[in-house]
Amino acid sequence: MTPKNSSTPSVDVVELATKARHKLFEACPRVGAVLTLDPAHIGYLTGYRSTGHDLYRYYQMAALVSPERVALVLGAGDGPPASELLPQESLFCYGTFFVESIDRAKHWGSAYTSFDAALDAALGSILPEHCLLGLDHTGIPSKDQLTASLKNWWIEDITARLLDCRVVKLPGEIELLRHANRLLERGIAVAFENAKIGVTECELAALVASEIVRGGGMPRSLTVTSGPRTALVDAPPSQRRLAHGDTLRLDLDCTYQGYWADIARTAFIGQATPKQEARFSAISTGLAAERQAIRPGVSAGELFRTAVDATRRAGLPAFDRHNCGHGIGVNSNERPRIVEGNQEILQPGMVICIETPYYEIEWGGMMTEQMMLVTENGAEPLTTLDATLRVL
Amino acid sequence: MTPKNSSTPSVDVVELATKARHKLFEACPRVGAVLTLDPAHIGYLTGYRSTGHDLYRYYQMAALVSPERVALVLGAGDGPPASELLPQESLFCYGTFFVESIDRAKHWGSAYTSFDAALDAALGSILPEHCLLGLDHTGIPSKDQLTASLKNWWIEDITARLLDCRVVKLPGEIELLRHANRLLERGIAVAFENAKIGVTECELAALVASEIVRGGGMPRSLTVTSGPRTALVDAPPSQRRLAHGDTLRLDLDCTYQGYWADIARTAFIGQATPKQEARFSAISTGLAAERQAIRPGVSAGELFRTAVDATRRAGLPAFDRHNCGHGIGVNSNERPRIVEGNQEILQPGMVICIETPYYEIEWGGMMTEQMMLVTENGAEPLTTLDATLRVL
Repeated sequence: MTPKNSSTPSVDVVELATKARHKLFEACPRVGAVLTLDPAHIGYLTGYRSTGHDLYRYYQMAALVSPERVALVLGAGDGPPASELLPQESLFCYGTFFVESIDRAKHWGSAYTSFDAALDAALGSILPEHCLLGLDHTGIPSKDQLTASLKNWWIEDITARLLDCRVVKLPGEIELLRHANRLLERGIAVAFENAKIGVTECELAALVASEIVRGGGMPRSLTVTSGPRTALVDAPPSQRRLAHGDTLRLDLDCTYQGYWADIARTAFIGQATPKQEARFSAISTGLAAERQAIRPGVSAGELFRTAVDATRRAGLPAFDRHNCGHGIGVNSNERPRIVEGNQEILQPGMVICIETPYYEIEWGGMMTEQMMLVTENGAEPLTTLDATLRVL
Repeated sequence: MTPKNSSTPSVDVVELATKARHKLFEACPRVGAVLTLDPAHIGYLTGYRSTGHDLYRYYQMAALVSPERVALVLGAGDGPPASELLPQESLFCYGTFFVESIDRAKHWGSAYTSFDAALDAALGSILPEHCLLGLDHTGIPSKDQLTASLKNWWIEDITARLLDCRVVKLPGEIELLRHANRLLERGIAVAFENAKIGVTECELAALVASEIVRGGGMPRSLTVTSGPRTALVDAPPSQRRLAHGDTLRLDLDCTYQGYWADIARTAFIGQATPKQEARFSAISTGLAAERQAIRPGVSAGELFRTAVDATRRAGLPAFDRHNCGHGIGVNSNERPRIVEGNQEILQPGMVICIETPYYEIEWGGMMTEQMMLVTENGAEPLTTLDATLRVL
């Protein structure tokens, strides 16, 4: 049951980010450099992901990139971990953090007193004056926040083109997504092996967390729910103990090198009642229909209708959903969104999560969620773990 | 070595949040209700912590609270997990998410089409018109963002008073911080038991993650570094294998019910060289001096100077730091900040992390970090794990 290939992917994330930049600048030929403040996009365009965002909600970073060059604006304490990936001259550190070094050039002190001062220096290093600067507005609620630093540059909004570029994944991105998916698959396999009456949701979630971290990933959401709690959508695991007849629903998210995985499996403890079986069968039939409909040229909206209609016909006539999946990449939920009426057309190289979850308060919830790669002829499942009805 | 008490604290987080609100409104007597958009403050004032913020960086929530009442503005998919803690009438959901229910009153649909519409409804439910609304500006970079929804209310900035209230912890908060600390202590104990030549940083981090999640917590940052990587401050664990003579540095963060723990330990694999021993001894002496200086009436700045001076005298004359610790609570790093010149006075009920880390690029880094409760007479260590020089 454990997936076979357990090796770590040998993707050079800095090289991968260089390819991502080339793709972006091909789409923005007039632009000399691009500025982003969004952590996922900083990772996409430079390869560096800071733990600072996990520790401090309002931690501020910026990336200023041209096709061949990178300037990172970051807190001084973030300089040493960033220097593991990027050359010192790419790092514009603000604030104070003392790290000693025999080589004084590597002494991390307080080069710039503020984020704005470091951003100004980074801008000067990357972009000649009067060049066009592409600005990613992701996470910048008010344009005015940045104008002081940007007054000398002509600015073009490149947000939409950046999202366009990201929707089809590069081969290296697919490898990272595949590995992130594998970490969750291993976690589910081990959790299911240990799911017995009396075991707590937290104990099972701990097994999942261990598999993720051992493989180099980071847990992001560990929805391990049982019994009536399975209806609670994205609820954290509790100290509830598994009981005979419980539904067990695992909906898991992790990241590996900044790339997300999001998959789900459901099992039944000791037995599945006819009602549990019938509903699981309906959502599984819907998901199979959705999966079979994946191919280049189909719209995300068609995929959504296929999934909903097939689930309804298979025994859940009242089934309703706001989505039946979503793209996945440097964010957990991104384009293409598999929602009613979405005209976005599937293309080879897109990676999508497909799902047909059903929740009923006080009764329970169940789902299977799979990561799929859109290929030239159809789709390749990244998630290959058994998704049939399982009684543990 | 494993801490004795392993039980889960029996803190009612909704009751705890009610106590926090009473404290806040005592400090803001003219204010009828308080509005916050900050996830940590939403948790502090309502008891509910959404996994939505872990999944979606720009997920929007709001809490509107009076001393006795709570209104939460949240995405429709967040309704069911929030309903585990708070009554349905407190939840103002925006967007669409389908959850069935036999009781149609509990059907989670699309009550409000937008965040702003839900916020308006929440405001109307909590606050009579022309009353004074206290606004927490944390995470609201531009005031203008919110004015449309708030035009009918008199607004007072209560940010500073909220932070003042939070700096001294309620007994229930101390219990949650104590438990979060215990999860990390268990993780370090297990990691040290398994730290052998050839084991990877990720394998040790996985043991830590497992202890955290099993106890109901969530890993936030797992800096498990070895050899020269110990100099890289908050770096994630890698597939590097432990070698003879390595320094092993664990600096860990987790949350339990929204409350953070942040502790660190250092050990040496096989042997410690005289240089490793001398430096570890210097920072340990500095930390012991800092610890002994903790008592009500002392300023955070005095604590900082005590730690730096003692470390320098003990054999590291060039030791320098931007801080020697910080408060901890619903954020990983909060008041009182133990930095040069900080006049903030220690008070009983404050919980602080104390630390004297030393980093030298290419050579390595080492630290001990402890969580301490300021008491009437001095300080009680929440972290009790062995902090002497350990060779594994």
